[in-house]
Amino acid sequence: MDETISIVLFSGTDDKLQSAAVLVGGAAALGKPVKILLQYWALEAFRADRIKANHGLAPEAGEAGRTAIDAAAKGGGAHWSDTMRMAKEIGEIDIQACSLSMDVLKLKQADLDSLVDGIEGVAAFLINAGDGQIVFI
Amino acid sequence: MDETISIVLFSGTDDKLQSAAVLVGGAAALGKPVKILLQYWALEAFRADRIKANHGLAPEAGEAGRTAIDAAAKGGGAHWSDTMRMAKEIGEIDIQACSLSMDVLKLKQADLDSLVDGIEGVAAFLINAGDGQIVFI
Amino acid sequence: MDETISIVLFSGTDDKLQSAAVLVGGAAALGKPVKILLQYWALEAFRADRIKANHGLAPEAGEAGRTAIDAAAKGGGAHWSDTMRMAKEIGEIDIQACSLSMDVLKLKQADLDSLVDGIEGVAAFLINAGDGQIVFI
Repeated sequence: MDETISIVLFSGTDDKLQSAAVLVGGAAALGKPVKILLQYWALEAFRADRIKANHGLAPEAGEAGRTAIDAAAKGGGAHWSDTMRMAKEIGEIDIQACSLSMDVLKLKQADLDSLVDGIEGVAAFLINAGDGQIVFI
Repeated sequence: MDETISIVLFSGTDDKLQSAAVLVGGAAALGKPVKILLQYWALEAFRADRIKANHGLAPEAGEAGRTAIDAAAKGGGAHWSDTMRMAKEIGEIDIQACSLSMDVLKLKQADLDSLVDGIEGVAAFLINAGDGQIVFI
Repeated sequence: MDETISIVLFSGTDDKLQSAAVLVGGAAALGKPVKILLQYWALEAFRADRIKANHGLAPEAGEAGRTAIDAAAKGGGAHWSDTMRMAKEIGEIDIQACSLSMDVLKLKQADLDSLVDGIEGVAAFLINAGDGQIVFI
């Protein structure tokens, strides 16, 4: 149980980010290190000025899904960014912004939430992933 | 070839569920155990009263894609739920509903199709996944 | 660092294909073999007559995202198909069309770009993946 989980986090909707956060929290609780590479719309979602904005849901959510998720949030469910923040406090969680996505979206690290530890290329991410698990979300 | 494949099944469109079912069927045929954790819209799709309903396709499918998939279904292609059912008969396939998604969507196990073996948290899923492959669909 | 990365490439939008291409390029640079199975909309995107057509973006891209990606492409960013082509020149990259998706979409290998090496079933793909990493994009 000491293998690293490496996550390429690409999607920027709140439901997938919540799913990723719960995986990260679970891994932290089990003492599994997690390395996250933020690309495209996930990277956008980690912008400091809008991390808690409404980032929408997957297209198949539908009206009933939207209502259920809004109700859960109002009922005290933690925001995905808070779940990730807690996971970083208890576990070995490293969050890197993909350098190529930073260029495409014209972002600087100062634009990003403090959850993001640095900027990294894909090759470095793959080297760190080693023979562990790679999950694309 | 005895490593478990652990699948976080998040997406609820029929094309992705079909893709997942074919992977599961292939793994079953090869004697590879599969553990599935149903989240969000995939969990919704496993509701007993609508598992064979139309769950739509990925947004990029387009009109031509929709037509092709409808034609394949009419031409005798198996529904993804039937492919999963067959896979469970020949292989070691375990399907769990994510407890957090059950809460968010206000579902009880009685609401779910009999394909679902139980309810599980993410930590238990990750423990069972061990150092095997984790796939997010 | 000699483990194979096996990618089920399902999605057909240019942003996810670009993300996949960058992963493949990074793996090639590191000498990691990559095996890709093209399904559904990714397979559609590899059609010879439209590989460089506009395949759209993930739904959450939004107007600002679209503008940023268009600007990056005009600014000299490589097309994902060119990145994959270069990766094939320097690394051990094998791209197979999923036989089932070929049937559903009524495609023949002659319809596909020369990047595609052949047609394969899911079971063969899983056998080749062995105990290495499996990534679903």
